[in-house]
Amino acid sequence: MPDLTTAIRGAFFDFLDDPWKYPGREHEAARFVGDGLLVVADGVIKAFGPYAEMAPRFPTVPVTHIQNRLILPGFIDGHIHFPQTRVLGAFGNQLLDWLQNWIFPEEIKYADRDYARAAAGNFFDALLAGGTTTCQAFTTSSPVSTEEFFEEAGRRGMRTIAGLTGIDRFAPPEFLNTPEQFYTETKRLIATYHRKGRHLYAITPRFAVGCTDEMMDTCARLKREHPDCWINTHISENPTEVRQARQEFPDCRDYTAVHEKHGLLGPKFTAGHGVWLSNDEFRRFARAGAGVCFCPLSNLFLGSGLFRLGRATDPDARVRVSLGCDMGGGNAFSMIRVLEEAYKVGMCNNTMLDGSVDPRWQDTAEAERNKLGPYRAFYLATLGGAHALYLDDVLGNFQPGKEADFVALDWNAGQHAMAWHQSLIAGDGGPGTIDQAAMLLFGVMACGDDRNVDETWVAGKRAYKKKAV
Amino acid sequence: MPDLTTAIRGAFFDFLDDPWKYPGREHEAARFVGDGLLVVADGVIKAFGPYAEMAPRFPTVPVTHIQNRLILPGFIDGHIHFPQTRVLGAFGNQLLDWLQNWIFPEEIKYADRDYARAAAGNFFDALLAGGTTTCQAFTTSSPVSTEEFFEEAGRRGMRTIAGLTGIDRFAPPEFLNTPEQFYTETKRLIATYHRKGRHLYAITPRFAVGCTDEMMDTCARLKREHPDCWINTHISENPTEVRQARQEFPDCRDYTAVHEKHGLLGPKFTAGHGVWLSNDEFRRFARAGAGVCFCPLSNLFLGSGLFRLGRATDPDARVRVSLGCDMGGGNAFSMIRVLEEAYKVGMCNNTMLDGSVDPRWQDTAEAERNKLGPYRAFYLATLGGAHALYLDDVLGNFQPGKEADFVALDWNAGQHAMAWHQSLIAGDGGPGTIDQAAMLLFGVMACGDDRNVDETWVAGKRAYKKKAV
Repeated sequence: MPDLTTAIRGAFFDFLDDPWKYPGREHEAARFVGDGLLVVADGVIKAFGPYAEMAPRFPTVPVTHIQNRLILPGFIDGHIHFPQTRVLGAFGNQLLDWLQNWIFPEEIKYADRDYARAAAGNFFDALLAGGTTTCQAFTTSSPVSTEEFFEEAGRRGMRTIAGLTGIDRFAPPEFLNTPEQFYTETKRLIATYHRKGRHLYAITPRFAVGCTDEMMDTCARLKREHPDCWINTHISENPTEVRQARQEFPDCRDYTAVHEKHGLLGPKFTAGHGVWLSNDEFRRFARAGAGVCFCPLSNLFLGSGLFRLGRATDPDARVRVSLGCDMGGGNAFSMIRVLEEAYKVGMCNNTMLDGSVDPRWQDTAEAERNKLGPYRAFYLATLGGAHALYLDDVLGNFQPGKEADFVALDWNAGQHAMAWHQSLIAGDGGPGTIDQAAMLLFGVMACGDDRNVDETWVAGKRAYKKKAV
Repeated sequence: MPDLTTAIRGAFFDFLDDPWKYPGREHEAARFVGDGLLVVADGVIKAFGPYAEMAPRFPTVPVTHIQNRLILPGFIDGHIHFPQTRVLGAFGNQLLDWLQNWIFPEEIKYADRDYARAAAGNFFDALLAGGTTTCQAFTTSSPVSTEEFFEEAGRRGMRTIAGLTGIDRFAPPEFLNTPEQFYTETKRLIATYHRKGRHLYAITPRFAVGCTDEMMDTCARLKREHPDCWINTHISENPTEVRQARQEFPDCRDYTAVHEKHGLLGPKFTAGHGVWLSNDEFRRFARAGAGVCFCPLSNLFLGSGLFRLGRATDPDARVRVSLGCDMGGGNAFSMIRVLEEAYKVGMCNNTMLDGSVDPRWQDTAEAERNKLGPYRAFYLATLGGAHALYLDDVLGNFQPGKEADFVALDWNAGQHAMAWHQSLIAGDGGPGTIDQAAMLLFGVMACGDDRNVDETWVAGKRAYKKKAV
């Protein structure tokens, strides 16, 4: 058997804890190894530490030296729509009419296997070019799209979560499935894909408004029969949608209660958006161990609103929060762009809560928790996302035993102004301290984009290298 | 004397009127010439029209054929800070403490001529890489920065507006100037630069909060003595700043009244931001012929708030609106990125006003005016910006007699997903209709960035060409 052990040398930055636990000293949750060595065997991290300590322990292992880059765990995207790759950034409507005009007509094409397969190539190329190594994805109501998604993820060796979409009302007829069809196909797909290779399966009711009580009960039954599976859906994205949920489920006091009633809210459950969740709903998410995925690119692009990150990170009721690009509602694949927009949403919330607009809304603690410095930001994109998705046993940082997915960031790439900007923080030698590294990362999230992703590695192998200009 | 006549052939897109006058039929304000010829002599447009009509009239003129691109008038940026080039995207505070922590310390460096000169090279390179051919810029309170700005603009032949900053309180002492110094230096700089080449001079009180009544009166005196000059300032960016303006000018009923009291509000006056202007203040801007510059990158990045574009474009009190990147409060130089964020701000305002959040706020007409389709968007970046800045006699579209500044956009460039997205709208042959051209432009503003700027031309000469990947 060949020795698949290899090692990567470079400057590493990752997290060991949640920076929101360390207000004002967020760096205590992070780790910076300016000259480190990551030893990988069969796609899994075998050892990690300073090069000077590690090198003598592994004298025969071949080393790839990645210089002038910051190496971070691969980005984790908690909410993305595989079949919207081609319609990202479509013009002009809020959620519900945008779905009817742009999204459903495109998603229907994914019943065609050739179209879905070509699309999957595009989709994963775009993900890797953005530094994303794991995503939780929506497919469509056609099993073909789920199959082609997992097949392509498998060819690339990527850890992904996905599943067939359940939707039995408020969409074009050819887009709907029945609870029976959904049950049968989901069972088959779970048997075929779940825990095969790196695939994980999510039972996926599209959103409660598009699901009858019977469809929601079917999801609950599937979760009882396959408790190891994930659940992925949407919640409280847009005010009109929130009202429609109340109308369609008159026996539920709010949108979250629909998921409680059907026994779905709990560990491994993620709902995208949650822009309009009440304080009480956030507390119930926290108690249940359920996750919310914050999708700022999309929330701004569709005008959905400003997610209350400071409320979701209340230390007395900390909700598991991942970040998602929500492409195509989100107008880019890049998690760096997601961080930029998350920062902006946080800054707008900060102003709304600092008392300067309306003293009755003043909550300086919550205001501060909205501020997304580089530690909090890159935590959410890596270990925080893994924790929110219940993947932190296998992903999220460079601890031995975890899977070796990582990204090498070029902090000087991107718009013309970038390199001179970054030279304010660190000279040619690169970052010397954790704070310098964090400030360079802030430069990347504030002024950068996918151009800052120079290399993306999946399971210890280079899966993407940016073209030289 | 050499014949400097030259011509550019390609697909041209520009505006002849304000699209907000044509709700639901915005294309009537625009013009698309799929195969056009732009004839330029000495930097000025001599003739423009379909190639088939123009070519026989100019048989000996050398033609540059720009293929597979959309050629638009050069972008006009109404609000940018030359001395913040290096600190764009700085972390973590709202307006007033961000100024103290990051901005003033950097701007002070621009009293050094070598630093300012090197910075000017960086600044104009970044502008041109973003497709911006004209800007109205802030410099610093040191005349050196204004001189180096105009000298570099002159070397590149660019039409710019700038002026020495007046600020006599609430900044580090070495950053302040006195009204007397400001008066003397401004007079000298106007004599040296205004209307020399393409330079235009703006009397520039930084913002009323940083100016005493005496400084504001000095600005008024300068405007009386030089009525042809522009005035450039900030207004109502942040709620704390709005309150401070009320405190510092207790005799003025609102922030706008400070400028009215000192006789500054009128034609050729531009105030950046205006996020928190009241309906009454917007009406007074409209009546006075004064302009507001909408800076969405910055308003989101500093958490300042959501500019009410739908209010500013009220047909009964239409305010002149330009767009600005407001780099460094804005985190990019690219006007394409400005359009993306302006679209997002508009969509958020749309949701707030459609009645779905609070029926008392419902105003469906204003809600709709916030929606920034491609016609409205690229109008603001070209002819609309020229109109707002009182430059539409020389800039903004391809009418003969105007200056030949333009940009060639590659609608397929940028993030990995872009080309496949754009293929939904037009095939390999490019756009065949004005609506296809507009939809490609929407793809650029929704999913693009400076990478879509393939060439930038100033006064009939290529000033920037993107490097091939």
